[in-house]
Amino acid sequence: MKSQVFETSPEQIAATQDRVLAKAVVERIGTRDAIVSITADGRRTRVTRPVANIDEALKSVIEAFAPFGPIEAVGHRVVHGGESFQEPIEFTEEVVERIEDLYDLAPLHNPHNVRGYRTTRALLPDARHVAVFDTAFHQTLPQEAYLYAIPYSFYAQDHYRRYGFHGVSHRYIAWRYAQIQGKPKDQFNIISCHLGNGSSMCAIQHGRSIDTSMGFTPLEGLVMGTRCGDIDPSLVLHMMAMSGEGPSEMEAMLTRRSGLYGLSGLSADMRLLLEFRGKGDTRAAMAIDVFCYRVKKYIGSYLAALNGAHAIVFTGGIGENAPAIRAQICAAMEGLGVRIDPAANDGATGTEAKISLPESPVQVWVIPTNEELLIARDTLRCLLELPHPD
Amino acid sequence: MKSQVFETSPEQIAATQDRVLAKAVVERIGTRDAIVSITADGRRTRVTRPVANIDEALKSVIEAFAPFGPIEAVGHRVVHGGESFQEPIEFTEEVVERIEDLYDLAPLHNPHNVRGYRTTRALLPDARHVAVFDTAFHQTLPQEAYLYAIPYSFYAQDHYRRYGFHGVSHRYIAWRYAQIQGKPKDQFNIISCHLGNGSSMCAIQHGRSIDTSMGFTPLEGLVMGTRCGDIDPSLVLHMMAMSGEGPSEMEAMLTRRSGLYGLSGLSADMRLLLEFRGKGDTRAAMAIDVFCYRVKKYIGSYLAALNGAHAIVFTGGIGENAPAIRAQICAAMEGLGVRIDPAANDGATGTEAKISLPESPVQVWVIPTNEELLIARDTLRCLLELPHPD
Repeated sequence: MKSQVFETSPEQIAATQDRVLAKAVVERIGTRDAIVSITADGRRTRVTRPVANIDEALKSVIEAFAPFGPIEAVGHRVVHGGESFQEPIEFTEEVVERIEDLYDLAPLHNPHNVRGYRTTRALLPDARHVAVFDTAFHQTLPQEAYLYAIPYSFYAQDHYRRYGFHGVSHRYIAWRYAQIQGKPKDQFNIISCHLGNGSSMCAIQHGRSIDTSMGFTPLEGLVMGTRCGDIDPSLVLHMMAMSGEGPSEMEAMLTRRSGLYGLSGLSADMRLLLEFRGKGDTRAAMAIDVFCYRVKKYIGSYLAALNGAHAIVFTGGIGENAPAIRAQICAAMEGLGVRIDPAANDGATGTEAKISLPESPVQVWVIPTNEELLIARDTLRCLLELPHPD
Repeated sequence: MKSQVFETSPEQIAATQDRVLAKAVVERIGTRDAIVSITADGRRTRVTRPVANIDEALKSVIEAFAPFGPIEAVGHRVVHGGESFQEPIEFTEEVVERIEDLYDLAPLHNPHNVRGYRTTRALLPDARHVAVFDTAFHQTLPQEAYLYAIPYSFYAQDHYRRYGFHGVSHRYIAWRYAQIQGKPKDQFNIISCHLGNGSSMCAIQHGRSIDTSMGFTPLEGLVMGTRCGDIDPSLVLHMMAMSGEGPSEMEAMLTRRSGLYGLSGLSADMRLLLEFRGKGDTRAAMAIDVFCYRVKKYIGSYLAALNGAHAIVFTGGIGENAPAIRAQICAAMEGLGVRIDPAANDGATGTEAKISLPESPVQVWVIPTNEELLIARDTLRCLLELPHPD
């Protein structure tokens, strides 16, 4: 569970001078040796202690944030906004009900998000609370990109369609790339590659998402740490027929035992796989090859969707910190105008950097994502009724 | 069921002077009003009569072919050759057993293919019989293109991987394109788009398949007449959990009631959908949009896989005969070097034609496929122990 305290205002947003006052990360929630890390004033404290559940995690974080208070507003990431939520909205009981109506679409995430909101509201009753949706940025997808080719009633009645996720991250990249270039967002087409434990890509046309690799759920698309991404649907059905497993067992296999972990048999962690590959492990190399090739193909498909792009941007844990992965993805793509600068690429870990050659028609960048900043800004803009940028 | 009688020889192949002596098509097998069409000597006869099953269909065709005999060899298309068959092979009992070992991989097709072989052998006992596999051309796929990101044992033990189909058609396109250009196949990268009732695409590098859109089964990839193609696997599982349907019911829905038919609610036939769209039907237009956008994205992904291509080739019933579809797929792709010539495109139906502008960096072609010719040649080469071209 990640949280940050920001000091922000419309003037600070305009001048990009919002300030982070404190950060908190709680890991291994539900165990006796959970880790609570607090960073503030340039110092980091790290405590190992029992944290039974999300409620306790929130309580310990809000206590730790007390010195930076009072906290006037809380922005909550909500995974699934369905087709109802196109932009951030202040939490009310009616909004909670509308989010609950979407439980069928996101049974694993939305209930946790609502619970997190209720707990935080009880702990911070004087603050105002805003929901920021991970699907909202992708609500601009055109019909041909969001419809699956199944009977249309599944869309019309059941709302089964591509929703896409990581929307806050991709929107941050669209904003930040334009800011770096010193021009409005609507002057650029970019391809945003958020590569982390969960990975997704987004085709961004003039600042708006027109396609994304995650779909109805975050399982579709790229190869992820433990998720399979794209697969022949008939193979899934064949495996169920052969094994007798039901939908939930198959979902668990495709979600938790597949991806880099399933292919390599070693780890879901790209850092470890790169180490293993360095020692000559062929299964690690194979998993990495499948991962990179999938990203490369999505870059091509989004170049086609966008009719060419100004830039490809890498972000997320892997995208920001693994030069070898970026190099492998972009290798042999000069035929599409993509030419990496090896030295610039090797030098860019966790920092903003252009990693393409000056003569490369398509620029390639590393831009660390900052979802928390965008959630804080969205929260402020929502409460002040300022316009929501695309 | 389609069949053709060829007169061919190594010399005729070298000079591209193999001759079709007769063609037969049997439609609506299993009904009392099946249609048996025979074309020979420039005349076509068409008889409506009961044809109970494949055996009777084969019998009537071989009787009709008698004037063009003796038939010395029969080439049988076999859908699934798994990883065992890389090229055509003469039928023996041992080959039949190896094909039967693959029934799990292709339960709907391979049993019919073996039955067709047995019936034909009984009807033509003096002929030699050769199996030509629809998967064989794709056996050159690299590991990163054929592996799904599921636990590796599913590949190692169960052979679950991307196989790809339409191999005979894509290989014909690779051969024919090089012949048109007057250069060896290894000088070109091309993207072959076989668009028909079943549709698939193939990235062909120097004459060899390096990726293809159908997967473990012919369900994956493009939107087809009644097949969904790519879809979030988790959506399939969600639909099963909600409906209580088992794998075979879900397979039937995704295979027979989806695709163009499911989206439009009108028809699986692109000609009809184009007509409906012309009359202002929005559902038909929507189904066509989803179809074309999927093809466009695959073109982009294969341009990335190939690091650029010399040509995009359209073939198959839709690819050869629907200029409006080709135009829609290739619209707004000049950013990737694809520029259609509208007049040339409109003029090309069922004929070989270059349909890109002279200045288009990527050429675009229509080339009618000819799987029967390639099967006849493969059969001859196999029996004469001549080298099998890639």
